[in-house]
Amino acid sequence: MPNPTAAMLVIGDEILSGRTRDANMHHLAGELTLRGIDLREVRVISDDRDAIIEAVRALSERYDHVVTSGGIGPTHDDITAECVAAAFDRPIGIRDDARAILAAHYAETGKELNAARLRMARIPDGACLIENPVSAAPGFSLGNVHVMAGVPSIFQAMVASLLPSLTGGAPLLSETVRVERGEGDIAEALSELAEAFPDLAIGSYPFQEKGLHGSNVVLRGTDPARLSDACARLRSDLAA
Amino acid sequence: MPNPTAAMLVIGDEILSGRTRDANMHHLAGELTLRGIDLREVRVISDDRDAIIEAVRALSERYDHVVTSGGIGPTHDDITAECVAAAFDRPIGIRDDARAILAAHYAETGKELNAARLRMARIPDGACLIENPVSAAPGFSLGNVHVMAGVPSIFQAMVASLLPSLTGGAPLLSETVRVERGEGDIAEALSELAEAFPDLAIGSYPFQEKGLHGSNVVLRGTDPARLSDACARLRSDLAA
Repeated sequence: MPNPTAAMLVIGDEILSGRTRDANMHHLAGELTLRGIDLREVRVISDDRDAIIEAVRALSERYDHVVTSGGIGPTHDDITAECVAAAFDRPIGIRDDARAILAAHYAETGKELNAARLRMARIPDGACLIENPVSAAPGFSLGNVHVMAGVPSIFQAMVASLLPSLTGGAPLLSETVRVERGEGDIAEALSELAEAFPDLAIGSYPFQEKGLHGSNVVLRGTDPARLSDACARLRSDLAA
Repeated sequence: MPNPTAAMLVIGDEILSGRTRDANMHHLAGELTLRGIDLREVRVISDDRDAIIEAVRALSERYDHVVTSGGIGPTHDDITAECVAAAFDRPIGIRDDARAILAAHYAETGKELNAARLRMARIPDGACLIENPVSAAPGFSLGNVHVMAGVPSIFQAMVASLLPSLTGGAPLLSETVRVERGEGDIAEALSELAEAFPDLAIGSYPFQEKGLHGSNVVLRGTDPARLSDACARLRSDLAA
């Protein structure tokens, strides 16, 4: 059975303007790979209502799961929740369970649960909450779309809350063979290897260290025996 | 006149598997912002022929410029050039000017210009070469699609080669106001500010430092006087 597929949607002007460097994509990619869920596509878009709705629809139709990051805080530019609701034609409003979570958190921290903060209790009808152990305000899953905060520490905590509930596949294994020759010198051997092992993904990533040109050849697949056979053949081909 | 728009297409399994952290998006975002070109969307996709062709077509129709990164080296998984040619229904083959650049480079470095390295001289008909001062093998522009290497040092050098040839707009200016209050406490003031200054993009980015919750409010626009007015009003609103 093929592994489940996923896409990520990063929402935020601050990434596209170069002000902020996104950290969530790399984190999510690693976590999904460990669980055998294939991350197939990432899109980064701005805080724009039409763009968010269109991307949520396109990705949720195409992939088994969509994880969003960003745009669920208390300020006027936080419009992800209402856009996800609109993408699925669902109403959205303040929900009692989400409000109770916020009320308890702000009572404890001595802050006022004002109108702006209450925005974070707006949850589309039919969604399941995603726990936020860092700052309380929950994320949510609606259909196959999982909506999470953009602040990296909160995003990571929400990913940890969500992932155990998703069905994974065979974890993707990888082996790296370090070759102290340039890509152009090993390309033919790699091409033959890729033909002989169509079940593996074989990539080559050049590096330069102290004037030395080399390549890290990364072999990926779900069957450890095939991976090991391919690595042995590559080492033997390159030694010949 | 509105600023020109751009999208970026990052091609590479290694980013989606979490093995490699992309560095090119952040670099390009900053460079385009400085030149007044609005980066509106970034997509990260795998080394898959159909996915690349579809994304190139979709983004090149929608935006003024598309910058790609990755997949133009000498190995079997480097398929970007042929996919870009296919997206525009153009033939692709080894071109004399690109071959001459490679021949000179490899003659100088004492390496063989073998069949694998010659792949890097395959350029779609009608494309313009983009200079690569780091490792010679050129990128190219075909229509509004600019094809560059994924290795960050080479990507950056190619961006520097390309950008002077693109027409920019009014550079996007930004001012940051640091507020030592949580987002939930300033959301109302920000919302009113956004209504009063519809020509500015106003974003709020929470931070935590030593137990202090604060927000960096970032105002962006092309008119320095409007930016300055908005910052003054924000400071006065928050002091009230």
